[in-house]
Amino acid sequence: MSRQGGRSADPRKVSQELFTLTYGSLVSQLVKDYESDEEVNKQLDKMGYNIGIRLVEDFLARSGERRCNDFRETADIIAKSGFKMFLGITPTVANWSAAGDEFSLIFDNNPLTDFVELPEEHSQLNYSNILCGVIRGALETVQMDVNVRFVQDLLKGDNQTELKVKFIKRLEDAVPAGEE
Amino acid sequence: MSRQGGRSADPRKVSQELFTLTYGSLVSQLVKDYESDEEVNKQLDKMGYNIGIRLVEDFLARSGERRCNDFRETADIIAKSGFKMFLGITPTVANWSAAGDEFSLIFDNNPLTDFVELPEEHSQLNYSNILCGVIRGALETVQMDVNVRFVQDLLKGDNQTELKVKFIKRLEDAVPAGEE
Repeated sequence: MSRQGGRSADPRKVSQELFTLTYGSLVSQLVKDYESDEEVNKQLDKMGYNIGIRLVEDFLARSGERRCNDFRETADIIAKSGFKMFLGITPTVANWSAAGDEFSLIFDNNPLTDFVELPEEHSQLNYSNILCGVIRGALETVQMDVNVRFVQDLLKGDNQTELKVKFIKRLEDAVPAGEE
Repeated sequence: MSRQGGRSADPRKVSQELFTLTYGSLVSQLVKDYESDEEVNKQLDKMGYNIGIRLVEDFLARSGERRCNDFRETADIIAKSGFKMFLGITPTVANWSAAGDEFSLIFDNNPLTDFVELPEEHSQLNYSNILCGVIRGALETVQMDVNVRFVQDLLKGDNQTELKVKFIKRLEDAVPAGEE
């Protein structure tokens, strides 16, 4: 019955169903609490941000990924390493802007929205908006200021779920992670 | 037994960190929303109940477990199969009552409380109370009315986390699961 450090063996995982239903409870609560979908979206983004700055440390430690200076490399690491490790899915990186400062993550499935239908009166709700915040928080921690937003969503009847990540600026003044 | 398309390979898992932090966001929101810890506990139990009645179907399908008529068997399945499948941990079944109608689940670690410290002003908060609701909801779905509550919690300075499950009655009138 011994377990290292009081935790189950690597990889430490929980079931997607439990996660999805727990996330659903969170979104339901916020919908009860706030008047507008826009405000719920904002709260989800904020919660995601706080999660992102916590997750990134764990991610860097476990993935062995190094800081990347190139935004294309960042995109690949988010999709193939980050989403894989945390949600067990690998979105496709696509739709690069000509300037190379914006890309899309395309999801053909999204574990957060299993079992979910969006009621008509919540057509402005970005149900999975927590993901935007997670990416924003995680990248800010490695000195990248980005804008992240959903532009398509299967839940809203779109053909796919698409999240856009736009590079704003490098945060030069922050203390580099792990070098405090 | 592959599920419908568009999902990642079995086992469908997400990272414990992501789950733990998302659950933390939920508890924080409830603490903001409700005046007393007792009310937060109640809300968590209610959310858990709704999750439990959803999870049990998935559990029966994936675990291959059959309905059990014996409360001791139920205890073992919850601990060794249910918690293992959903949270990746196996609590110990202990402290059976003489009448055989009550047992404890003892947790030497609890993924929900990683990174968590309970502020003094929330000494009545049962942070992981959602688990009580999940067990209650899941068992009600298989016709067992139970009472579930935390009696010890590492977060509150106890030596272990202990959850008591007490059998109340068999729900004879309900339609058996899968036999509607």
